Amino acid sequence: MSQNTDNLAALQAQEQALAARYAEFQAQGLKLDLTRGKPGTEQLDLSNPLDGILNGQYQAENTDLRNYGGLDGLAAAKALGGLLLNVPAENVLVGGNSSLTLMYHYLLHAHLFGLRGAGTAWNREGDVKFLCPVPGYDRHFGICEALGIRMLPVPMTDEGPDMDRVETLVRQDAAIKGLWCVPKYSNPTGCTYSDTVVERIAALGKIAGNGFRVMYDNAYSVHDLTDTPPVLASIFQACRDQGTEDSVVQFASTSKMTFAGAGVAFVATSLANLAAFKDHLGVATIGPDKLNQQRHVLWLKDADTIQQLMRQHAALIKPKFDCVQRILEQGLGNRNLGHWTNPDGGYFISFYTHPGLATEVVKLAGEAGVKLTPAGAAFPYGKDSEDRHIRLSPTFPSINELEQAMEVFVTCVQLASLRQHLD
Amino acid sequence: MSQNTDNLAALQAQEQALAARYAEFQAQGLKLDLTRGKPGTEQLDLSNPLDGILNGQYQAENTDLRNYGGLDGLAAAKALGGLLLNVPAENVLVGGNSSLTLMYHYLLHAHLFGLRGAGTAWNREGDVKFLCPVPGYDRHFGICEALGIRMLPVPMTDEGPDMDRVETLVRQDAAIKGLWCVPKYSNPTGCTYSDTVVERIAALGKIAGNGFRVMYDNAYSVHDLTDTPPVLASIFQACRDQGTEDSVVQFASTSKMTFAGAGVAFVATSLANLAAFKDHLGVATIGPDKLNQQRHVLWLKDADTIQQLMRQHAALIKPKFDCVQRILEQGLGNRNLGHWTNPDGGYFISFYTHPGLATEVVKLAGEAGVKLTPAGAAFPYGKDSEDRHIRLSPTFPSINELEQAMEVFVTCVQLASLRQHLD
Repeated sequence: MSQNTDNLAALQAQEQALAARYAEFQAQGLKLDLTRGKPGTEQLDLSNPLDGILNGQYQAENTDLRNYGGLDGLAAAKALGGLLLNVPAENVLVGGNSSLTLMYHYLLHAHLFGLRGAGTAWNREGDVKFLCPVPGYDRHFGICEALGIRMLPVPMTDEGPDMDRVETLVRQDAAIKGLWCVPKYSNPTGCTYSDTVVERIAALGKIAGNGFRVMYDNAYSVHDLTDTPPVLASIFQACRDQGTEDSVVQFASTSKMTFAGAGVAFVATSLANLAAFKDHLGVATIGPDKLNQQRHVLWLKDADTIQQLMRQHAALIKPKFDCVQRILEQGLGNRNLGHWTNPDGGYFISFYTHPGLATEVVKLAGEAGVKLTPAGAAFPYGKDSEDRHIRLSPTFPSINELEQAMEVFVTCVQLASLRQHLD
Repeated sequence: MSQNTDNLAALQAQEQALAARYAEFQAQGLKLDLTRGKPGTEQLDLSNPLDGILNGQYQAENTDLRNYGGLDGLAAAKALGGLLLNVPAENVLVGGNSSLTLMYHYLLHAHLFGLRGAGTAWNREGDVKFLCPVPGYDRHFGICEALGIRMLPVPMTDEGPDMDRVETLVRQDAAIKGLWCVPKYSNPTGCTYSDTVVERIAALGKIAGNGFRVMYDNAYSVHDLTDTPPVLASIFQACRDQGTEDSVVQFASTSKMTFAGAGVAFVATSLANLAAFKDHLGVATIGPDKLNQQRHVLWLKDADTIQQLMRQHAALIKPKFDCVQRILEQGLGNRNLGHWTNPDGGYFISFYTHPGLATEVVKLAGEAGVKLTPAGAAFPYGKDSEDRHIRLSPTFPSINELEQAMEVFVTCVQLASLRQHLD
């Protein structure tokens, strides 16, 4: 027999062994879920004192926190948002429990109603496009899709969006009205934008068409996993320096600091943008839940308190990120079966299979009881043209569940890769 | 001297006396506010146990209430909404703290995105109109105005909207896509729709054009001031009987039961409508604050508990409504200086001046330190063509403040009426 045949037989034997291992997993009737970036129960427990913290004190800032009113949010809550986003409190509006809702309303406002009156609505100019660094956050893309804003993917690098490409496109096409960004521990690659990238994003307002807006979702600004986290440059300051304050709108929330579904959301931008946005928002709400804002003001208090809380979060989830890295390394390291990111914070790890395998891996894992985010989810319209990217979310399961899930995942990657090779 | 001259002199003397009285009020430097339907502090106090009621119990319905998820709301919260709106729990979606937000999103969904897919968006048909019973609720009209939906006023009667007029218009014009309703203790007249009116509203879906929706804001369903409140017929049942379930969308909230700014809002409609609305809403939110829903489930418990709580509210605000009636009667009764409503519940009293005087009365009151809702506010585009209507909101001030404010109000009506007569 030739060496090739030998080799083929060996590979076939390997495939059988992997398939047997896979069948064992299937027989276990697992029910594991790595789909969404949800905090784990122990993380939520860290903020249990939040509920009840008001202790019957319903007055603050000369306001009855229980009653109607206050579209802006409480002054102290604005200051809290300013702390998270590194901007003055006056530039912050505090919303309800979902920064996604603020993003939706901001794009609604810009696209359909007009950032500076009805005549300025993006959709009056015809086709409207948005730049979407990929892989990115599916819910950002969902908003654009729902509003009929055409998405153009641009590649992510380890330092942020490919700015050469972004600048070229923005210069070429005035129909490009914005750019999605998750500048720190980007969802899902985990990278933090470099100083240069932040600077160049702040400068886009000078070369873009009218009403250009960077949707700057700084969701993980304090969500470090190490004691020496990367420092994100201040885009607010960079915009001030360049006179482009109107071109960037920042978002944050306490969802992954306190209670994921019952936190407080923030939007921060120029005073002119904020005034116009409030005119829009005031039609759609009686004002935010000020009691929950006050709870967060009392609980998160100041920068030191926040840092301490986030260290406790890190102590709970760093071992989960380490577990993922260890099992990926053991099962796939140095074997040319894919590569992955190793972030210093945030909620996600990006895994890249060989081209054409992501869908198959997700399917195999699903059939063995491990639910993964659908392949392509991190791309506009759900289309990963290379079918390579899989988003891993390690925070919600227990370490034991995570270990099991990752063993299944590694087996699925091995099996799919080997079968592709054998085909 | 002739009798006419006698009469004129008497009126002029009366005017001088009133002007002097008015000047006295002005000199007092009052700062009173009857503008908005806000619960008073003592009403808010009734639900103080709401905060803290969770007592560390964060699990319910196999869900961690603190975490993400659950666009529909908690099952028990859906049941609570069902209780308030007299519909099955499965027909309810539970939102955040503002039913106005749910109304905004429902109209956004219908007008711009389509109740049954993009092809069905109202705005694809060109001009879109909405029937607005007047006087009505300014914030309803604000949503239509923001969305570019043209508002057509129709008169309110003591039994609800003038249904002859409504039916005629709906038959004539397929561009009429809906009707605003506040069926119980209507804002601001306080009337409750008769059984016949409810029946006829439920039947509109059979004569209207495609995608017709009644926005049925049942904000005061349990907000009775008497022990023998009017009973509102079930529009849900009427729609079932007539096969028009899709044509009515109901709203409610706990804002005027517990904490005005930190309550829970509900929307109820057919299952088909609800499914389509969830597709829309799911893009714009991570889901509602389930902790606050659970607080309300535990606090409002059942129909008996709700009734007891609402009786406590009535005990606090009935004296305020009585105070308004007493002072209006004393100052203006049987003198042909205006008329007003005397509702059995809700938050408002409608006052009608002689034609052409509402703006002047509001101005006079304001200059004497009594802030009233702007004249015309209860009409589309803020235009009361007869300039007669003034909305009085007696719940927020203390009885003492209310007495003062109403004395000023009565004087302003007398003065403006007399001056008009003298002109």
